[in-house]
Amino acid sequence: MQTPTAAFALRLRVRMDNIPGALGRLATVLGETGANITRIAGFDARGSDLEEDVVVHCVSEAHMAAVVEATGAIPGVELLDVTDLTFELHRGGKIEVLAHLPIGDRDDLSMAYTPGVARVCRAIADEPSRSYDLTIKANTVAIVTDGTAVLGLGDIGPEAALPVMEGKALLFKEFAGVDAFPICLDVSRALTPAERADQIVETVQRIAPVFGGINLEDIAAPSCFDVEARLRDLLDIPVFHDDQHGTAVVVLAALRNALRVVGKPMSEITVVLSGVGAAGVAIARILMEAGVPNVIGADRAGAVHTGRDDLNASKRWFAENSNPEGRTGTLVEVLAGADVFVGVSAPGLLTGADVATMAKDAIVFALANPDPEIRPEEAAQVAAVVATGRSDFPNQINNVLAFPGIFRGALDARATKITELMKLAAADAIASAVSSDDLGPGFIIPSVFDRRVVELVAPAVAAAAKAEGMVRA
Amino acid sequence: MQTPTAAFALRLRVRMDNIPGALGRLATVLGETGANITRIAGFDARGSDLEEDVVVHCVSEAHMAAVVEATGAIPGVELLDVTDLTFELHRGGKIEVLAHLPIGDRDDLSMAYTPGVARVCRAIADEPSRSYDLTIKANTVAIVTDGTAVLGLGDIGPEAALPVMEGKALLFKEFAGVDAFPICLDVSRALTPAERADQIVETVQRIAPVFGGINLEDIAAPSCFDVEARLRDLLDIPVFHDDQHGTAVVVLAALRNALRVVGKPMSEITVVLSGVGAAGVAIARILMEAGVPNVIGADRAGAVHTGRDDLNASKRWFAENSNPEGRTGTLVEVLAGADVFVGVSAPGLLTGADVATMAKDAIVFALANPDPEIRPEEAAQVAAVVATGRSDFPNQINNVLAFPGIFRGALDARATKITELMKLAAADAIASAVSSDDLGPGFIIPSVFDRRVVELVAPAVAAAAKAEGMVRA
Repeated sequence: MQTPTAAFALRLRVRMDNIPGALGRLATVLGETGANITRIAGFDARGSDLEEDVVVHCVSEAHMAAVVEATGAIPGVELLDVTDLTFELHRGGKIEVLAHLPIGDRDDLSMAYTPGVARVCRAIADEPSRSYDLTIKANTVAIVTDGTAVLGLGDIGPEAALPVMEGKALLFKEFAGVDAFPICLDVSRALTPAERADQIVETVQRIAPVFGGINLEDIAAPSCFDVEARLRDLLDIPVFHDDQHGTAVVVLAALRNALRVVGKPMSEITVVLSGVGAAGVAIARILMEAGVPNVIGADRAGAVHTGRDDLNASKRWFAENSNPEGRTGTLVEVLAGADVFVGVSAPGLLTGADVATMAKDAIVFALANPDPEIRPEEAAQVAAVVATGRSDFPNQINNVLAFPGIFRGALDARATKITELMKLAAADAIASAVSSDDLGPGFIIPSVFDRRVVELVAPAVAAAAKAEGMVRA
Repeated sequence: MQTPTAAFALRLRVRMDNIPGALGRLATVLGETGANITRIAGFDARGSDLEEDVVVHCVSEAHMAAVVEATGAIPGVELLDVTDLTFELHRGGKIEVLAHLPIGDRDDLSMAYTPGVARVCRAIADEPSRSYDLTIKANTVAIVTDGTAVLGLGDIGPEAALPVMEGKALLFKEFAGVDAFPICLDVSRALTPAERADQIVETVQRIAPVFGGINLEDIAAPSCFDVEARLRDLLDIPVFHDDQHGTAVVVLAALRNALRVVGKPMSEITVVLSGVGAAGVAIARILMEAGVPNVIGADRAGAVHTGRDDLNASKRWFAENSNPEGRTGTLVEVLAGADVFVGVSAPGLLTGADVATMAKDAIVFALANPDPEIRPEEAAQVAAVVATGRSDFPNQINNVLAFPGIFRGALDARATKITELMKLAAADAIASAVSSDDLGPGFIIPSVFDRRVVELVAPAVAAAAKAEGMVRA
């Protein structure tokens, strides 16, 4: 059973008889449907009638429909209006472009626009680096997608991807004060992945002058690898594919603390990684850079190894760079004896019995969203530490812990790249936000609402950038 | 002599002897340099010393330097600090991306971002037109430039163009509540104009999903014609090259009122137009659509006519579509007997004697900026009505009167194009903001700070769009 959430919140405007027990009857029926009543407001007594707004959280759209039906069927209760609060919140979009200063008179206009602005333009034309002081560039990030791999929804196109990108812009601003703007690219679906990558690279290169950084988002593999690698080379501003590296950074942070809980060193563990796409490659890379000696990637066909002949680009990378013992077999077979399971794949791949075959003090990160590779309650029966991607269980692995601080640090340092060292520094900083006193199986990763995280991550990333000399002169 | 303006404002931090007359001495010296003192603040008396911030307006950068030098040379006055206020205002840029809602807890996050946002994405994927309700699209405009014709500065490139585009975004928000974001395109200078046009068109087409309209800005001719025409065909959102059509709309508005002042009908006048580039073509077009029978374009070589063999694309358009009598000769020669002069060309082309050869009650719009085709004081000696592009003379022809209301109206109506009829409606609305009581030779066009203008223009444009059926279903 899922937990009711604000993601499926309804506001029900109801009219009922103004007699004792009326509201109780309504509450009982709503409770029987499994919905959570989170707010009752808009109270308005009109003689024999009573009108109220009741906000309920549900678990799914089907559940929302059932709640509406059940409410409408209560004798003496009239359902006047139903509002889906998530859609209400999205009306008109979630961000706006705000002016820093008013234009109230000729002096304002002649300084902010013509003729005064011409001097500022000339100053930048003479010395291009001044755009970092005199324009929005230094604090502005493009959130770039082609809409091909949006959340778990797949290739829904650039228009439908926009609400996610707006949400990301919201988080950039809220958590790190970064001005981010969505760029949703209409690159024809008739193209091959290589052609799409060409068009994305070309377009981002052309729009880059306004931006101090590029956050690539929800771009499908294999284009995403090529796009990121080429843009990193072509541009002199940080380029970061969050679906890959944001996830990888937070996984590493969580793993560091999980290993503190069970008392195992990074240098002695075996990690089985289910899901060998874009995020899987990035996780494997960062774990190996952090010193994990044995990472085994697995897909539906089992462990990825050099003997297989069904491998695409990212799986070939796994075959060539991981699984040093050349393990073969199904996911469940290679899991036996492993210290850590990381899943970025699909729901319900594992049972508690499978996890029980892992090494003592097993660590399970079941990150498929919204339905994990194994239910966390079940995993917790046998594993020492369990994490998911969900907010309704302990230990949520969420990119929001990483990307705001990483970009804040990169922008503050005027970094030209986001390097492996900067990502490792970010992971360490996130891990350090959990004190030894708080650390435990149910608390290996800070809350996404812990504002200290960005304050720790940003300076660590900036320092790493400077240490590597990856900053603008 | 130019008028001192805030565009050349300095803040001088000075320390002087705390004795009577010290400030007077300073003010006298500043006055002798021709600077205007507009503010004295930051007063701080420290025993025998007095510290103050003195803000002065100058006429040019050379004048600013002279003011600094003169101030530093006053005995008993120490110049502690000099700040160029236009540069100070631009520090960090002029716009930011603001979140519409805070992300304070899990409920906020699960509605604005995952998992709730997925339902909004799916709704748009199922019915793409819902992006107009559920995202920023309906109120968001891209301000697109390649930096090739920025103000009077020419091809200064995309980075240096950004302050102008930010200023434009500021004006869009301030005057019309439109969220506009700058897109400054890095399209190689090694390209031919046709190739540049191809790249601009291709790029704008790719980024279009986020935007409800495209404002093209400061793109050089001839690319700008091709870019606008092709994007109008390719996109289902309004595309508008402001340098052309914004100027044309305001010129027509001003001309309507100027003709009211002198009592001549549009259908009987001859207009000589100096400057046959992008703005010139748009002005000629709208004047002819408004019923002007005789428009004669002129460049450095004189009147443009079909007998000339030195014509580029825009001049060929003039030769083929205007000058119905096939007039030849220099600008000054064809001006004789004309009712109206409109200049979008270069400083100092005309003398008062030239204007005196025009028909009785001549109208002179000398719009070259910052230095007009004829000084307005000189033109006013012989012409009935004079307008310029400058804010320090009466009758300022300024695009700010047009583009905010035109886009506000187009967005409100969900227009798919900005048509000729919509532009004519905008011009009439702007003209109507000057009442018969106020109308006169020194007041043919409303102030750019008259907030009624956008309130008149937007509904007129929206109504025209609807009347033509140029709106989204």
